[in-house]
Amino acid sequence: MTDASYEALDRFAHTLADAAGAAILPWYRAVPAVDDKGSALGFDPVTEADRAAERAIRDLIQAHYPGHGIIGEEYGRLNPDAEHVWVIDPIDGTKSFIAGQPVWGTLIARLHRGQAVFGLNDQPYLRERYWGDGAQALGSREGRTFPLSTRPCADLAQASVWVSSTLARDAPAHAAIERLGRAVRMLVYGGDCFSLPMLAAGHIDIAIGWGGFEIYDIAAHIPIVAGAGGIVTALDGGNPLHADGMIALGDPALLPATLDRLEWPWSA
Amino acid sequence: MTDASYEALDRFAHTLADAAGAAILPWYRAVPAVDDKGSALGFDPVTEADRAAERAIRDLIQAHYPGHGIIGEEYGRLNPDAEHVWVIDPIDGTKSFIAGQPVWGTLIARLHRGQAVFGLNDQPYLRERYWGDGAQALGSREGRTFPLSTRPCADLAQASVWVSSTLARDAPAHAAIERLGRAVRMLVYGGDCFSLPMLAAGHIDIAIGWGGFEIYDIAAHIPIVAGAGGIVTALDGGNPLHADGMIALGDPALLPATLDRLEWPWSA
Repeated sequence: MTDASYEALDRFAHTLADAAGAAILPWYRAVPAVDDKGSALGFDPVTEADRAAERAIRDLIQAHYPGHGIIGEEYGRLNPDAEHVWVIDPIDGTKSFIAGQPVWGTLIARLHRGQAVFGLNDQPYLRERYWGDGAQALGSREGRTFPLSTRPCADLAQASVWVSSTLARDAPAHAAIERLGRAVRMLVYGGDCFSLPMLAAGHIDIAIGWGGFEIYDIAAHIPIVAGAGGIVTALDGGNPLHADGMIALGDPALLPATLDRLEWPWSA
Repeated sequence: MTDASYEALDRFAHTLADAAGAAILPWYRAVPAVDDKGSALGFDPVTEADRAAERAIRDLIQAHYPGHGIIGEEYGRLNPDAEHVWVIDPIDGTKSFIAGQPVWGTLIARLHRGQAVFGLNDQPYLRERYWGDGAQALGSREGRTFPLSTRPCADLAQASVWVSSTLARDAPAHAAIERLGRAVRMLVYGGDCFSLPMLAAGHIDIAIGWGGFEIYDIAAHIPIVAGAGGIVTALDGGNPLHADGMIALGDPALLPATLDRLEWPWSA
């Protein structure tokens, strides 16, 4: 493909995000009908929104690029060994979504020959979008576009860390996060996938997540963070694309000290 | 005072929030200058924003209601035994603020003869505001106003819980939150003071926070949550106004089971 064709694919990712956002927003903060006993009437807005968004994305891909593969959270794998594969999580951060917290996101990545070459993280409620191709990364808010750049932080003791997993409540994970917490300036739970663009924009230094992670939870972040000057690895420092967790670092120099504290793998 | 005078005070709270938001937003997600060694040059945006907002609020109160008291996080107590006392936390959720996560808020409460009779929780970046007087509660987003109502949830096993404290990393608190976590449908860390309006709007059932809490972290939430049909208590179920932590419940029927699980006070 020509460079122009790749640019067309990157623009197409924005079209996919637009369609996903339009499918999701009517369900966000929707309040269920409640029956006489005070129970919600079988209402599951996040599942409805997730499925509607993934259908919208898949329909567009199949209409415009029928030879491309698709790996999605809701509707599985289609032609996953194609040269170009779209990896999509329509709503990453479902607990935040149903709780009204605006830190969930739509994650869209494009793999080329198995490598994540483009990623996009959209927060349609905030009208914020972040994307990157490994060489550069950009953000937009309400249509205004700005470059993303991580900040330097070579000393773990100066690092701000966000842990986007509730599973630190499990004992071995809790111990590992505690070890890291004692070594850094600040460690906070929460933030979900919104921590990643905040790292790419230079507001935090380390973001960590694990627990049932799949390729669609990770792929989009890789080229965004790399394009902003950082790095995403697996919890052991290796290739994150097919890992079950990830570490994102704004300053790659933090990697050895971070791995030293986390001591992955964790066992009970 | 007449009812019309109370309404004027409630409107004045919105004027205070407008001024605080205008003072804060230039500092939100501001990126510091960095020196040759990669260190930020003495840049503390949250402190600058906090102080600028509290000064703006205090100036307005002293200009319009010089007899009123003020209790603020940054500049202390002025005439705290007055009939009317304004209790203000310009930026609640400072870690979220500096990390770019839009779940911090400006908290403004009015005490009348020592009781919290009006509360307001503003998120100027989202252009969302929530307020209440114990009898009713309202929210607004980008100028559109809507009523707030908690949802029924009489069964702890059905409850969604948000814990807005990083201090659950301390062992006794961690054990208490774990006991609660095993009894509920979902327990998530994060969300900061933004969890409270989400509870008032019926999206979650329980919000818990503690650890260095002061009156300005709690007062505004009391009349908002009560106005939406819920309740705020101390961690022992008592009056929260001067407590060092709080439980907010969308359905007051959840209180006994919640207290039973938390077993406050916690000790090492």
